[in-house]
Amino acid sequence: MTPKPTLAVVGATGAVGSAMLQMLTHHADVWGEIRLVSSPRSAGRKAPVRGVECEILALDEDAFEGVDLALFLVPEPVAARWAPVAVAKGAVVVDTSAAFRADPDVPLVVPETNPHAARVRPRGIVASPGCTTLALIVAVGALHAEFGLAELVVTAQQAASGAGAGQAGVEALRAQLGLVAGGGDLGTHPGDVRRAIGENTGPFPGPLALNVLPWSGTPGADGASSEEERVRDETRRVLGLPGLRVAATCVRVPVITGHSVSVHARFEHPVPLGRAHEILATSPGVVLYDDPAAGDFPTPADVVGTDPTWVGRVRRSMDDDRALDLFVCADNLRKGAALNALQIAESIVTAL
Amino acid sequence: MTPKPTLAVVGATGAVGSAMLQMLTHHADVWGEIRLVSSPRSAGRKAPVRGVECEILALDEDAFEGVDLALFLVPEPVAARWAPVAVAKGAVVVDTSAAFRADPDVPLVVPETNPHAARVRPRGIVASPGCTTLALIVAVGALHAEFGLAELVVTAQQAASGAGAGQAGVEALRAQLGLVAGGGDLGTHPGDVRRAIGENTGPFPGPLALNVLPWSGTPGADGASSEEERVRDETRRVLGLPGLRVAATCVRVPVITGHSVSVHARFEHPVPLGRAHEILATSPGVVLYDDPAAGDFPTPADVVGTDPTWVGRVRRSMDDDRALDLFVCADNLRKGAALNALQIAESIVTAL
Repeated sequence: MTPKPTLAVVGATGAVGSAMLQMLTHHADVWGEIRLVSSPRSAGRKAPVRGVECEILALDEDAFEGVDLALFLVPEPVAARWAPVAVAKGAVVVDTSAAFRADPDVPLVVPETNPHAARVRPRGIVASPGCTTLALIVAVGALHAEFGLAELVVTAQQAASGAGAGQAGVEALRAQLGLVAGGGDLGTHPGDVRRAIGENTGPFPGPLALNVLPWSGTPGADGASSEEERVRDETRRVLGLPGLRVAATCVRVPVITGHSVSVHARFEHPVPLGRAHEILATSPGVVLYDDPAAGDFPTPADVVGTDPTWVGRVRRSMDDDRALDLFVCADNLRKGAALNALQIAESIVTAL
Repeated sequence: MTPKPTLAVVGATGAVGSAMLQMLTHHADVWGEIRLVSSPRSAGRKAPVRGVECEILALDEDAFEGVDLALFLVPEPVAARWAPVAVAKGAVVVDTSAAFRADPDVPLVVPETNPHAARVRPRGIVASPGCTTLALIVAVGALHAEFGLAELVVTAQQAASGAGAGQAGVEALRAQLGLVAGGGDLGTHPGDVRRAIGENTGPFPGPLALNVLPWSGTPGADGASSEEERVRDETRRVLGLPGLRVAATCVRVPVITGHSVSVHARFEHPVPLGRAHEILATSPGVVLYDDPAAGDFPTPADVVGTDPTWVGRVRRSMDDDRALDLFVCADNLRKGAALNALQIAESIVTAL
C-alpha cells in the first residue's frame, strides 16, 4: 500500500486558508502529513486542521521537502515566485492566484466542468479560476455541455471579501457600516455617504456601504477592468471556447461574502426550459433553488458558508428558444477559491 | 395675456411628492395656483412650495375644480380611480404610476427621448415610465437615435426607495443596517443575516442589508418579475420599437436612493466609440463621467439628489463594432419619478 500523500497548504492563515483548513477537516481524509505554510510573519503560530493544532512553517524551499501536492492560497506575486520552487522540489502545485491562469502550459480547471484538463500539466502547475468565474462556471458549464454556449452577458455583484486582500475589504465594509448605520438621512444627498465614510474606503475605489461600485481590479484593455477580462478569459479557457462572445461587468456590492451573477446566455441549440431546469437540478455542485413567487431564489446572505453554486430565476430570455436568463450565487471563499482548489488537489492525488 | 395654468400635485406628502415640491420651488415658475392634494389622512397639514406653506387638500372631485394639469404621484390603484376624475374636470393628467403605462391611448413619455408623443393624448392622460426604465432610457435613447437599438441586456441594481411604498423600503433598510452593523461576523454563515434581521424585511422578500435580492415586484409571465417586464415593455414603447429584444434582470441592493443599471446594447449600425462618447457627453439630461482609472464612474451614493442620468464605463463589447457596454445611475425619486413627470407637465403647459 502506497503511503498517503503529503499536502502543503501555502497561505494557511488568510480567509481562504481558514476555509481550506475547515474543509480539510470535514472532507474524506486522503492525506498523510498536512503541512501548513505561511509568510514568516505568521510562522510559529498554530492553526487547527483535522482536530489537531499544527504549527505553521515559514515559506521557504525546505517547506516543500517531501511534499506531493502544494495548495497555493497566496497573492499573485508570492505564487509566481514560490510555485516553481515547490515544483522543483517534486510537488504538484494547485494555485488559486491569477499568476498562471493565462499560461497555455498550465491547465485552468473546474472539476465539475473540465476535470480531464488537470491530467496534462507541463509545468507541474494547475490553476484554479478567479472567484467571479467560479461563481457562474459550474452552472453555465452544465448547460453548455448539452446546448453549446454561443454568447454570455454577465453582471457580477462581487462581495467585499473578494477584493484583493479579502480581510481588508471585509474590515473596511464593516467600518463603513458602523459609520452609516443610524446616520439620519445618509444616502439622500449627493456625496453624503462619501463624506461620512471619508478615508475609510479600504481597498475599494469609493464608499461601499449604501452604495455599489462599478469597478474592481485594475484597468485592463479597452475600458474593461482586470476582473472583467478575467471572467471572459477564464470562461473561454475552462469551456474550451477561445472565441466565445463574453460581455462582463463587475460591480462591487456591500455584501461580506457571496458573489452573485446575473447571467444572460445564448446557446447554439434550442434549450427546452424544462430540460434546462432538469440539468441544473441534477448537475454535481449545483443546487436549483427557483420558485420566486414562494421566495425561493439564491441570495449571498443565504448561500455564504455553503459549497454549491446556487441557481435561481431560470427563465426564457427574449422569447428566443436559444436564450436563457438566470441568477447564480456562490461563496467566493469556498467554491470561489478554497473548495475548487481542494477538489482539483483531491482529483490529482486520487489519480496518482 | 393668458393666466398661468393651475397645477394640482396629487400625492404631495410622499417621498416623490417631497422631491416634486423642491423642484417646483427651483424650476422656472410657469404655474399660477399650485394645489397640493393628498389622502384624507394628510389633508389639513401644510407643505412648503415656492417658499410658501400650502395647506394640503383631501383627494376628492372638488380638488380638481379649475385645475389645468394634475401630476399624479400616487400608487397605481389611486391613480386608476382618480386620474379619469381629474380628466373629466378638465385637467390634463401626468401619471407616474403603472396604471396607464400599457394603455395604447396613453402616451408613455420621456421628454429627452420621445417628446412629441405627449402631444396626442386621447384619454387626456400622459404616463411617465417606471424608475428603472427611466434610469437607462435617456442614455440608451440618445445612442438609439443615431445607431438604431437592436438588443438590450440589462441588470438593474434597484435602491430601497424604489420599492412599492418607497418610505417603507427606506425605513426597513435603515432598521436592518442598525441590526447588522457591529454584528461580529454576520455575513459569514448561511442565513445569519436572515436570522439577525428576522421579521424586519419591510416590503422586501428577504434581508436587504449585507445582501442583494434578485427579485422585485410581483410574478409576471414566464418567470420574469413585474419590474423586469416593465423595463422591457416601457423601453419598447418609449423608443417605438415594439419588437425590441430585451433581457432584464432587476436586483434589489442595499442602497437608499439611486438606481444603477449595467447595460449591454447591440445596435443596427456600427458604433464608433468616440462618437458614442460624444453623443453621451452632449445629450440633454446626460452626464458622461467616465475615467475609471481616475476613479470617475457614477455610483448611486454620488448621484442621489441630482437630476441627470450619469453614464460611465462606456466601452466596446465582445469586440463587436455594433455592441457597447455601459453603466448608468440616476436618482429614482427625481429623474426616475418626480422630475420626468414635471418635465412632461412643463412641456404640455408650454404648448397649451
